[in-house]
Amino acid sequence: MKTLLKNVTVIPMTKKEYFFQGDILIDDKKIAYVGPSYQGDADITKDCSSFIALPSFVNAHTHLAMTLMRNYKDSQENLQAWLAEIFPIEDKLNEDDIYYGSLNGLAEMIKSGTTTFADMYFQQWKTIEAVKKAGVRGCISVTFFGDEAETDRRINYNYKRIVEEKNGDDLIICHSAPHAIYTCTKETYQKVAKFSKDNGLYINTHLSETQKEVDDCIKQTGLRPAEYLDSIGVFDTPTYVAHGVFFSDEELKILKRKNVSVVHNPSSNCKLASGICPISHYKKMGINVALGTDGASSNNNLSMIKEMRLAAMLSTVSTMKPASITPYEILEMATINGAKALGLADKIGTLEVGKDADIVLINKNIAEMTPLNNIFSALVFSMPDRAVDSVYCQGKQLLEDGKLLTIDEEDVIKKINKQWEDILRR
Amino acid sequence: MKTLLKNVTVIPMTKKEYFFQGDILIDDKKIAYVGPSYQGDADITKDCSSFIALPSFVNAHTHLAMTLMRNYKDSQENLQAWLAEIFPIEDKLNEDDIYYGSLNGLAEMIKSGTTTFADMYFQQWKTIEAVKKAGVRGCISVTFFGDEAETDRRINYNYKRIVEEKNGDDLIICHSAPHAIYTCTKETYQKVAKFSKDNGLYINTHLSETQKEVDDCIKQTGLRPAEYLDSIGVFDTPTYVAHGVFFSDEELKILKRKNVSVVHNPSSNCKLASGICPISHYKKMGINVALGTDGASSNNNLSMIKEMRLAAMLSTVSTMKPASITPYEILEMATINGAKALGLADKIGTLEVGKDADIVLINKNIAEMTPLNNIFSALVFSMPDRAVDSVYCQGKQLLEDGKLLTIDEEDVIKKINKQWEDILRR
Repeated sequence: MKTLLKNVTVIPMTKKEYFFQGDILIDDKKIAYVGPSYQGDADITKDCSSFIALPSFVNAHTHLAMTLMRNYKDSQENLQAWLAEIFPIEDKLNEDDIYYGSLNGLAEMIKSGTTTFADMYFQQWKTIEAVKKAGVRGCISVTFFGDEAETDRRINYNYKRIVEEKNGDDLIICHSAPHAIYTCTKETYQKVAKFSKDNGLYINTHLSETQKEVDDCIKQTGLRPAEYLDSIGVFDTPTYVAHGVFFSDEELKILKRKNVSVVHNPSSNCKLASGICPISHYKKMGINVALGTDGASSNNNLSMIKEMRLAAMLSTVSTMKPASITPYEILEMATINGAKALGLADKIGTLEVGKDADIVLINKNIAEMTPLNNIFSALVFSMPDRAVDSVYCQGKQLLEDGKLLTIDEEDVIKKINKQWEDILRR
Repeated sequence: MKTLLKNVTVIPMTKKEYFFQGDILIDDKKIAYVGPSYQGDADITKDCSSFIALPSFVNAHTHLAMTLMRNYKDSQENLQAWLAEIFPIEDKLNEDDIYYGSLNGLAEMIKSGTTTFADMYFQQWKTIEAVKKAGVRGCISVTFFGDEAETDRRINYNYKRIVEEKNGDDLIICHSAPHAIYTCTKETYQKVAKFSKDNGLYINTHLSETQKEVDDCIKQTGLRPAEYLDSIGVFDTPTYVAHGVFFSDEELKILKRKNVSVVHNPSSNCKLASGICPISHYKKMGINVALGTDGASSNNNLSMIKEMRLAAMLSTVSTMKPASITPYEILEMATINGAKALGLADKIGTLEVGKDADIVLINKNIAEMTPLNNIFSALVFSMPDRAVDSVYCQGKQLLEDGKLLTIDEEDVIKKINKQWEDILRR
């Protein structure tokens, strides 16, 4: 099946601040052509003269099923106080909760242009079921908490369940996620690192999210968080770390040397009063900075559009330099840098022939984006969520005219409200 | 004509964190009933069980026609460098530019739930024409720049044109706007203050937007900006000031005593690297803090929804206290506090019998707002622009199912693009 996106404003994200008017041919799962007017045949030709085509967004850090706890006790004093509210709820979650919580989050992500996400959560065989239904791409981590015995249990049971549910589907990518240095022992990190290396899994972990975490780590190990994980060999397996608000230059040098990506989560870092991550400095130090929403319960949604705008605003006001990060660099964070962080840069993150057709079409003919002027500023600062018209993942269309094609939103809303009422009663 | 909004989740904004399920009756221009199930008759009954009703938003500081310069040279070093790019463009604007620039901004504002705004700009008889077409409520300022002679010219010509165009329409409210202390002389401020007092006009001015403005003011007058305006008698006329990022406690005491409102513009203050306004401190000092988008060229849009979210995020991360401003207080800033700032609290800003029917209906049955849990958090942190379903101003419906009823958006987009091309050629 060949679909021709005709006369579209293409931002391929392949070179700095580059865009052009042209055509994109989707052939089955792949991008078969990107360039000026395409002369060959196609099964479907779509007039895209109102649209901007971008690689669809990569949400490089979230906890998908946490849409269940959206706006639940969300104005706590800090991360620790908030986790104290959340952990008891999480202990009660069953497989149906995870399924509908995930599906709700996927609805939200597709509507705002995201087709790839990195998830860290529980009972994720149910998340995989939802991901398959939605038709997106998920980096699903086996999540680790606690000590070695618990780690063994999760390797033997959770990893097995996830691989079974993946069942060879190349849109499901297995990663492993030791939760954080304050919830996992040194032995857990080391065991997970070895297990991950042996099985070719990327490591996804929270790191340096709060000043308290840094202070506690120094007190307990004599090292700062990234120094500590490096000292115990974790970074010898490909790793991406979420938050990373407080890295020292010494830590950044380690991350650079070990090719560790940092996933910036601006909404969550604001909402939980963690701090502002100095991304322009990290970029100067050569770090690959990606972007993520974190879970919907500390955000309180999963829109990369909102996340891009906030990332740009915070960088400017915290450095007092409007050019500290350009809008184009923000778009990179939300696309190709995310793909790099998750080890998927050969498949997604740019619009190039041979890559998977993961594409978002954005309607530029709306009051909010008129006049367009600087197209990159328009996408980062002006774009409302409603501008997202169509979304493709691996060539399959998931959104058309802002309407979901693979998820019955009304039904999911009913189900999740029912599950949530039930959780509160348990 | 009586319209009954049936079975709606009402947030009247009359008392702290209060909401209920009930009915609202719109009778012609006014709210005739707000409460539990209404028993009388109505011409139209609308099932609102999916909706939250709020007083529609008050954008207490903008430069409406600046939608023309949206995303135009918008990553300058600071306010001064940006103004140096903008002023030459403004010199070229004609009446058609102002009309279509305004209409485009009004389309955007209505779509995001705003029906009242405070405008400071030029040739605003054309803005008034657009406001009348759109059907919203505009506080339109006679804008002053420069010395006394220029002030006289603007009083004699611009004010007259604005009053003529208003032509008795009570949705058009005339204010007066000396631009800033760095563009207007002392004599201009004093003349404008007297003229405003004599004619019952509120004063709208930029104040304490950047550290440079504060430093220059101290150098030139020995006083900080609010002390200076107070010393020359400006605050004896009702005044609201935009930005107000750097007020000292002494200045805040003056503002409190003189009942001067501060309009917070978080996007613009970030984008232009002005700084973060400490609104939680201002509120503790008893200041009425309202919210505004500033012009679309330093934002880069006019959505109070985006502005509320950013205001909340910045307050938390800059104070490191998630409870520094509650979501409910953010909603107050966007509704009743704006009404107070503009002298309209007897007419709008809450949902109460006898007030004008300025109402926004927000669709809560969408993935992004499910589960709802804390309704105030949901509105401030989760709500996408697309959640706005219907908007009424003085009883007239301006938006239905997200579609504009009084503005032909497609036509405006064509016209503004044409005007803008023309401006760049002039």
